[in-house]
Amino acid sequence: MERKKAQEDMIVYLNNVFIKDKAACISPADRGFTLGDGVFDTLLVLDGQLRHAKAHFARLLKHASVLRIKTNETPESLESAALHLLKKNKFVMGRYALRTTITRGAGVRGLLPPDESVPTLLMRVSSAVSPDSLPPVYAVISQTTRRNEFSPLSRIKSLQYGDNLLALLEAKDRDANEALILNTAGHISCSTTGNIFILEKGRLLTPPLSDGALNGITRTLVMRNTTVKEQSLTPEHLTEAEGIYLTNSLSGIRAVEKLEEKTIDSKNAFYNALTGLEVI
Amino acid sequence: MERKKAQEDMIVYLNNVFIKDKAACISPADRGFTLGDGVFDTLLVLDGQLRHAKAHFARLLKHASVLRIKTNETPESLESAALHLLKKNKFVMGRYALRTTITRGAGVRGLLPPDESVPTLLMRVSSAVSPDSLPPVYAVISQTTRRNEFSPLSRIKSLQYGDNLLALLEAKDRDANEALILNTAGHISCSTTGNIFILEKGRLLTPPLSDGALNGITRTLVMRNTTVKEQSLTPEHLTEAEGIYLTNSLSGIRAVEKLEEKTIDSKNAFYNALTGLEVI
Repeated sequence: MERKKAQEDMIVYLNNVFIKDKAACISPADRGFTLGDGVFDTLLVLDGQLRHAKAHFARLLKHASVLRIKTNETPESLESAALHLLKKNKFVMGRYALRTTITRGAGVRGLLPPDESVPTLLMRVSSAVSPDSLPPVYAVISQTTRRNEFSPLSRIKSLQYGDNLLALLEAKDRDANEALILNTAGHISCSTTGNIFILEKGRLLTPPLSDGALNGITRTLVMRNTTVKEQSLTPEHLTEAEGIYLTNSLSGIRAVEKLEEKTIDSKNAFYNALTGLEVI
Repeated sequence: MERKKAQEDMIVYLNNVFIKDKAACISPADRGFTLGDGVFDTLLVLDGQLRHAKAHFARLLKHASVLRIKTNETPESLESAALHLLKKNKFVMGRYALRTTITRGAGVRGLLPPDESVPTLLMRVSSAVSPDSLPPVYAVISQTTRRNEFSPLSRIKSLQYGDNLLALLEAKDRDANEALILNTAGHISCSTTGNIFILEKGRLLTPPLSDGALNGITRTLVMRNTTVKEQSLTPEHLTEAEGIYLTNSLSGIRAVEKLEEKTIDSKNAFYNALTGLEVI
């Protein structure tokens, strides 16, 4: 209860206004709520510093444009708002997650967006757990659902996390805490909250975006800092991998220590070198 | 402006409270808003009567259970709330759409749902246009996206309408007002807001649910009232069809009068017999 209360007393940024979380109000007509018509981004805040803010906000705006959501925001205006939000909350030290959501805003009933709409912009900060405190990653390959690589949504961070949710619930049922999601062709696309890399014969491989992977900021940074080959991956690749790694902006690079029933020595010398890149 | 004002003054039902639309407030932590973690239903209200209410609400609760959203509501309790809502709004005569949304409710940041959550229940009523006043249906086959028949979400009415939205925006670009969506195998699954039937050699065909179709209430009623064969449909089937029909609960059975560049005589004698079934 204490934690929840703290969250409610946090300040959020909603449509140009700084307001207490418990007073913030999303319209029931907001198309983000009614139809998943929006995008979001989550970035890491370390001791008052936004990590890779410009890359995150540039991507967020690009993803909004895939849904043709028009906004006057720029990466710079979003960064400025985020920094103000940290100040308002006095978040000078510590580890936080900043989530920025942009939706098309309110609309009348029906699927077709209004010709003119005023987007909703919401920024919220939450405490983030250090990756060191997280349990080891035990993953399964989801049998419940697949990722749709035919859809542009598979490559943007939209508000539509239902498939990932179903896969994660399945993982929990199977005594795991993460699920890898196949695309419709049977290739690995991603985990429920990040990109995947595998180590094969000393080389890092990752699925191409066309396999239904999101262009994760951490994925991009790993690829910029070390040699990675983009290649479609099958479940067989995973079985034979010398290491399996998941990346996202909050937890960085995490080693998968068990896949289905098989233990994997992912926390090997290569992993140590990889995490030494300090990409987050 | 008048219409919008009227909407704001309408009463909505939100978590057991009747409240003015403009005063209704969805929490920014609601997982329906943050992750599309919810389901909805839209049913027709004609002169104060809820059309097929029990079927709609039973389906809604079934779909909620696919996402494992726990609620104490029953079809009867939802029907009772809906009738009260109509009374509160004095909607005795006229044609309305009643939308019921159930989400998992508020949750802390992250994909995994809280062990205990209080679902959000929202009912809103909007004016509905008579199908007679709607323009003729000009449809295209979406090239932008596909429907993911591998996902359980393709068979429930979740808050995730992004693919349908992309397809509808594409239709607008192509001077049409509706799009048909292929599944990943290249079979027709549905339109952006309804099920599809085609007339071939005097017989009605419709895609099986396994092709990524939602189990529409009107679809079910059509199948109950006339002979329909479930069969996977290709774009070639459409080209050769004697008629193409779209169904949903608000508009009933609509004839597609143009597909891509080709005019179709869907409003034929068969259509007249079909609409005579009065399934909505």
